[in-house]
Order: sequence, then structure tokens, then C-alpha cells
Amino acid sequence: MFHAKVRSEVLKGIVDIVSTLVEGFSLKAVDPAHVAMVDLEVEKGAFEEFVADDAELGIDLDKIKEVLRLARSGDIIELEQDEERNRLIMNVGNVSRRMNLVDTTGMSDPKVPNLDLPTKLSVNAEELQKGIRAAESVSDHIAMNANADGFELYSEGDTDTVSLKLSKDALVSLESEESVRSLFPLDYFSNMVRAISAGTVVQISLGNDYPVKMEFNIAGDKGRVSYLLAPRIESD
Amino acid sequence: MFHAKVRSEVLKGIVDIVSTLVEGFSLKAVDPAHVAMVDLEVEKGAFEEFVADDAELGIDLDKIKEVLRLARSGDIIELEQDEERNRLIMNVGNVSRRMNLVDTTGMSDPKVPNLDLPTKLSVNAEELQKGIRAAESVSDHIAMNANADGFELYSEGDTDTVSLKLSKDALVSLESEESVRSLFPLDYFSNMVRAISAGTVVQISLGNDYPVKMEFNIAGDKGRVSYLLAPRIESD
Amino acid sequence: MFHAKVRSEVLKGIVDIVSTLVEGFSLKAVDPAHVAMVDLEVEKGAFEEFVADDAELGIDLDKIKEVLRLARSGDIIELEQDEERNRLIMNVGNVSRRMNLVDTTGMSDPKVPNLDLPTKLSVNAEELQKGIRAAESVSDHIAMNANADGFELYSEGDTDTVSLKLSKDALVSLESEESVRSLFPLDYFSNMVRAISAGTVVQISLGNDYPVKMEFNIAGDKGRVSYLLAPRIESD
Repeated sequence: MFHAKVRSEVLKGIVDIVSTLVEGFSLKAVDPAHVAMVDLEVEKGAFEEFVADDAELGIDLDKIKEVLRLARSGDIIELEQDEERNRLIMNVGNVSRRMNLVDTTGMSDPKVPNLDLPTKLSVNAEELQKGIRAAESVSDHIAMNANADGFELYSEGDTDTVSLKLSKDALVSLESEESVRSLFPLDYFSNMVRAISAGTVVQISLGNDYPVKMEFNIAGDKGRVSYLLAPRIESD
Repeated sequence: MFHAKVRSEVLKGIVDIVSTLVEGFSLKAVDPAHVAMVDLEVEKGAFEEFVADDAELGIDLDKIKEVLRLARSGDIIELEQDEERNRLIMNVGNVSRRMNLVDTTGMSDPKVPNLDLPTKLSVNAEELQKGIRAAESVSDHIAMNANADGFELYSEGDTDTVSLKLSKDALVSLESEESVRSLFPLDYFSNMVRAISAGTVVQISLGNDYPVKMEFNIAGDKGRVSYLLAPRIESD
Repeated sequence: MFHAKVRSEVLKGIVDIVSTLVEGFSLKAVDPAHVAMVDLEVEKGAFEEFVADDAELGIDLDKIKEVLRLARSGDIIELEQDEERNRLIMNVGNVSRRMNLVDTTGMSDPKVPNLDLPTKLSVNAEELQKGIRAAESVSDHIAMNANADGFELYSEGDTDTVSLKLSKDALVSLESEESVRSLFPLDYFSNMVRAISAGTVVQISLGNDYPVKMEFNIAGDKGRVSYLLAPRIESD
């Protein structure tokens, strides 16, 4: 059983984040290439109304997006499971959409790996977004470097380099005893970071040629996203 | 003889409506597939100046649109027939465009069929536009249903359905003694309804597997549009 | 040696103008087909800081544009030559882009021809931009006509003509003793004129089947652009 009401902005925030991976919607989603993984938890309190048994619903994200396009900010969206017909009913105002649910039998529940990442820092999402825009001109990879003094996004192309440097003072927080550096595919990094709302603080956990973990709040701090991205190993 | 001056908004309103059919410009226009027909009347009073004999001018709508793109809202557009050279001259401020007229000899004058449609209702154009946006995700057809209690736009796809329901109270008016239902091609319906200005009330006349007639005012209520759309017959 | 700081708007204004020609950046630039030439001078005073020897730097305009996209209006952009590594370093806030300089050895320094153009007039850029928008619908050429009474932009297609007429009173100034007319390729003319900021007065020097010279100020009147465009000779 599942029945909920939620503000369209909150649902849109959730969908935007999960959509950054190519497939599926569940509390945990991995992309088909197993390069990235997103783990998302939203409290009951983010919803206007929320009643559910322990249910697993396979939902086509594109359909949710279609319904969201009919809503204005502030509209309440009602989601209701029609268990008999295996459907989800979404109501926005006087519009009602009934959609078949997706069979989740074959979908695996990805395991979040346990990582020991030595460097932790917090940074405004806008800085990451600016670093990505700068990097896109020169390479399809981006390196994250950190040491006790600060954090750097760095990209190197055939002829040009670009760097965004944030000193310890320009960061929200920094705990880094050693110097670390990992390289990432820019497209994955960019898709995820672009979906983060302005004003959000992102907590980054970083190692040496190791995955990066990015964590941040959504839905007015009533939801939490944890995003893992595998590194590219540099051959030099 | 033909000579007129008109505010660019008024001319734009007329062109927007007529453009929803693929071809031609005349007081009555039918699309090439004979699925839809628009009948449009604009009073002399909608023009700043209007002097004309009983004239028939074949005008290329795309050229009118090009000139309209040069005008700002509030600009007066002067249209003048150059009978000697069979041209239309359009003046907007200090720009003057002279265009050849189109030969109307081969164009037929469509006959508006006389239809007896039992259900009549009036609805805000925005509601129809919302119903169309919702329907586009699931099907390329849209059904209009009405009975004594209200009006519904309904679409059914392979897996999903979508419905916009308007109770009698949510309509501007409703006269429906029996329950009626007709199915229409969504693209034609959508092209017409999208061209209607916000705030316009649309009067709909509906039957059972019968054409729909939509009527509404343009040009500050100095023009009237009547739009007829043929139904698709459901095979079930 | 070269080191400068400049407001992003000023640099953007310069780049916009020079970009209207297909290739290169230097104080003088010709397009590959030798149809157009732009000569641009910017005073030291347009920069926040400016220190330079007599230097020639080959710069890839597209890279400058990429960096400009990272800047907001009001941001100061620092440009610095790294002579040892033959690079240009551009800094915007905490982003630093290092780019290889382009070898200028093969680039010729175009000679500005000495032209005696009998008609001189000044006109608001917006009028030229409106004339171009009107002409684009009917032809890929545009004629500039002037006499003692005024100035006209005129285009003639297979079936239609379009004309923008400016009487002496509608011009900022006009010195024209004889009647002159030259025809130009619309794409070149349009690229250049579209890049001119609103509110700019353009001085036009015109002859009979002769190149046109257009001059105007940029960078808050601290820079001056001179643009030459070769005529198309009419065969009639």
C-alpha cells in the first residue's frame, strides 16, 4: 500500500537528482555502466501526506516528469497505488494520470561499498558548477585535488589547462592531512553537480585514485543524497 | 480596392488563428486533408482604418508573418493593394514591403456544414490547453466527453490513461441533456487550441462521434472564430 | 611582455566585434575570402590595468569566449603572457585558464585601402538592424542608397521588395551631394551590424559600386572600430 501527497517542488527535486543516472528509480540506483551510484532517502516529513506499507514500486521516471510539467510550483501532487490493477495514479488539480507500474523483479539492489576516504571538505555547489563549466572547454576529465591548504578542480587538455582553486577560507570546511588526487569522467560529474540546487552545501569525501563521495540535502533538508563516482586511473 | 491600417497585435491575432491550418488565407480556410475548417470574421472596427470594395486577395501568410516580426506591439501596420501591379504593400514605420499576390482562381470556397450538436458548453482556453499538454504524453488522440454533470478530456495509450475533469461548477456554462463522446486527432486539436489567447472563453458544441465546433472571439471581441474538427471513429 | 586587467563587458565587446570575421584576432583582421576587413583600436584607458611592450600575440578567439562565459558582468579579467612557455593565462575570480598562443608568423598584416567615399552619413545602429531583419526575408543582398534627401536600405527578391527609408531628419547626420548606390552581401553586413550595441551611432561612408566603410565606438568610447565591406557589382 502506498498513498502520498507532496508539493510539486519536492517531487521535482527528487526526480532531478535520480534522473542524473540513466535508468530506474529506487532508493538506490546505479547507472548501467556501474560508474556511478546514487543513494537517496526522503523523510516522511517532506510529504504533505504519506501512508505506506513496506512497498516497492517500479516507476517510469519519464512519466513522473511528464506529470510534473503540468504542475506549477506550490501545487500538491497526489500519488496513489492501485494495487488491484498494478498501477500508480497521479493527480495534479483536475488532471489524473494512471500509469502501469514497472516490474522490479529483475532489478538488483546495489550494495553501497564501504569506503575509507581520508579527506573531507564542504563546498558551495555553485563553485563546483563553475569549475565544471570551465573544465568542459579543455577536457572530458576533471581532477579533484586537495591538501591541508585547499581544494582544486583541474583539467588538462592537449594545449590548455584550466583550474579552479579554493583556499581553505573559500571552503565551508576542510579536513585534509595528506595531499590527495583523483581523476573523474567529466560527464558523470557534471550531470550530478548540475542537478544540485543553488545554495546547497556539498560534502565531498576524497582519496588518492579512489571513488569520490558527494553528499547533500534536498527537499528542505528532509532528504539526503549520497552520490558515489568511480575514478579514472591516470596512465602517466 | 483595398486599403487598411491595423494594430500589429490585431493582425497577429488573426494570422495566428488562420495559421493553424496548413494552407491559405481567406475568410474560410480548410486544411488540405479536409479534417478541419476555420471560419473567421473581423469587423471593420478592429482596424484603425478600413476601405475596401468587395475584393478577394490571395495573400501568402508567411510573408505577413515576416513583416509582423518587424513590428512592436502598438505599431500600426498599413496594408494597401496596388491593383495595377497585382501587389500588396505593407508598411510598418519606415519599412515598406511589396509582395506579389497569390492567384485565387483555383481555390475553392469551402461550405460550412450545418450541424445539429446537442451539447453546448463554455470553458476557459487554459483548461483545454492543460488537457492537451497532459494528453500528449499518452496518445495522439483525445476524447471529449460531456454529460449533465461536467466535461472531460480523456486520452488512452497502450499502458497509461490521462483525464482532465471539469465539473459543471468549473465550466463557464453547460447545457447537456444526454451523455456525448467524440474522439479527435490530437495534433489538429492542439494546433488550434494553442493559438487561443489566455483569458479567452471557448464555446464548444459537441455530439456523439460527430464533429466538434469551437467558437471564440479575437481582436478585442471585434472578431469571431468558428473552428470545425472532424472526429475519428473509434473501432471497439 | 603583456599584462592587463579588463572588465568582462569591455573584453566581450571587443571579442563580439572581431568575431564577426571568421578568423584570427589582431588589431587588423580580414576574413578568408577578403570581402571584409575590421580595424580596431582600444585605448589603454579601456583597461583596468595595462602593461605591455610592443607585443604581437596570436590568440584563439574561441578560447577567449569560453573564459568570458565564466564571467559575470562587472568581473575583472586578468590576462597575462607567460613568455617562457608561450602561453596566455586568463584569470577570472578563482578560475585560471592557461592557453597556448597561436603562431602569427604566417599571418599577413592587411593593408587598409585608401578610399575616397563621397557620401557620409550617421545613423542609429537599431535602424540598420531593422533594415537587415526586413531584407533577410526577400534576398541575400542589400543595397545602400543615399542622396541629399536621405538614406535607403533596399532589397529585391524574385517576387518581393523591401525598403527601409530614412529621411535626412531621421538620420544623425547626412552629407551627400550626389546620388550613390552600392550593393552588398547581406550575410557579411548582417554579421557586423548585429554585433553593434544598442544606442551606438554608426558613421557610414558610401560611394557608387564601391566598398562601404562603417565606423563606430566601443568600450565606452575608448575603442574605435572601422569596418570595410567590398561591394557586389550588379549585372543589369
